[in-house]
Amino acid sequence: MIEQLQRLPGVGPKTAQRLALHILKRSPEEVEALAQALIEAKKQVGLCKVCFHLSAEPVCEICRNSNRDNSTLCVVEDSRDVIALEKTREYRGKYHVLGGVISPMDGIGPDQLHIQPLVRRVSQQKIKEVILAISPSVEGETTTLYVGQLLKPFTRVTRIAFGLPMGGDLEYADEVTLARALEGRRELD
Amino acid sequence: MIEQLQRLPGVGPKTAQRLALHILKRSPEEVEALAQALIEAKKQVGLCKVCFHLSAEPVCEICRNSNRDNSTLCVVEDSRDVIALEKTREYRGKYHVLGGVISPMDGIGPDQLHIQPLVRRVSQQKIKEVILAISPSVEGETTTLYVGQLLKPFTRVTRIAFGLPMGGDLEYADEVTLARALEGRRELD
Repeated sequence: MIEQLQRLPGVGPKTAQRLALHILKRSPEEVEALAQALIEAKKQVGLCKVCFHLSAEPVCEICRNSNRDNSTLCVVEDSRDVIALEKTREYRGKYHVLGGVISPMDGIGPDQLHIQPLVRRVSQQKIKEVILAISPSVEGETTTLYVGQLLKPFTRVTRIAFGLPMGGDLEYADEVTLARALEGRRELD
Repeated sequence: MIEQLQRLPGVGPKTAQRLALHILKRSPEEVEALAQALIEAKKQVGLCKVCFHLSAEPVCEICRNSNRDNSTLCVVEDSRDVIALEKTREYRGKYHVLGGVISPMDGIGPDQLHIQPLVRRVSQQKIKEVILAISPSVEGETTTLYVGQLLKPFTRVTRIAFGLPMGGDLEYADEVTLARALEGRRELD
């Protein structure tokens, strides 16, 4: 059990042992309930066939929500990013989850990601804007540029802003962030 | 001595004691040299009379540098920000150090800052752009808007970008930063 638990992200040998000891103290019914919950969740949750966000239904809740703006797509790496963006309550459009970023070092090329379905969505539907919200790592930048080139013939393509995080002090920002903040400056309203 | 050392930023009782014990182990000459260095630095370093950056000369090195672009001013809170921005090697204009931000709670109004000299500089010289590089705290925002309003009649006023810091992962960004990154999105080149 400890060996299995250790495979979870952020769980080292010590935490795995603590979890295991906790589980062994529960009643057989409780342990059964936990185990069933894992199996059921894995059985029921798949990927939305439209946007590839995690979903218990064939099409996810966000894609089915008719109150959301169908003409704006936000492209992200994975489902965690959808959850993070939803928490801001600022975005009212739809999403497209790539399932990762292009990373030749890890053997991930464009074909391993949900890029083709994205191009199909954008070329076949009336999309006014695609917002690329991909992390600014080397692989993320490559992916942003690659996807951007593919989509530009069909629609307006934007990317999220990079710069000083809110509450961040100028002097604690790293040099690259400061340079980007300076470069990305905008007219004061 | 411990009491005095504790007044330094980031020095608590324990660090103060460690510093004090270290100083007591030095030779009298070494201690004298350190004490003199403090007195001398305080005596010699004042504020540049043009930009209010720390300077041993009446006018600082940056203001005297004729290779720098005279028509762009970057407005910052304090000298630490000048040092941080200089490290990026991206900015070739001049600076103006406000000496803080407007903070009614701490009794700091516009008159306690170097805002009047800034308005004079901008109104009397040929400044093409003023970049406001002030931290995005509540006080910082107030200061940015206040200074911006004063300068707009004379020149173009911009502010640095706020958004995702470089290397930062989308899912680790706080909600306000993500919302700003989304709001501040720009056309993909």
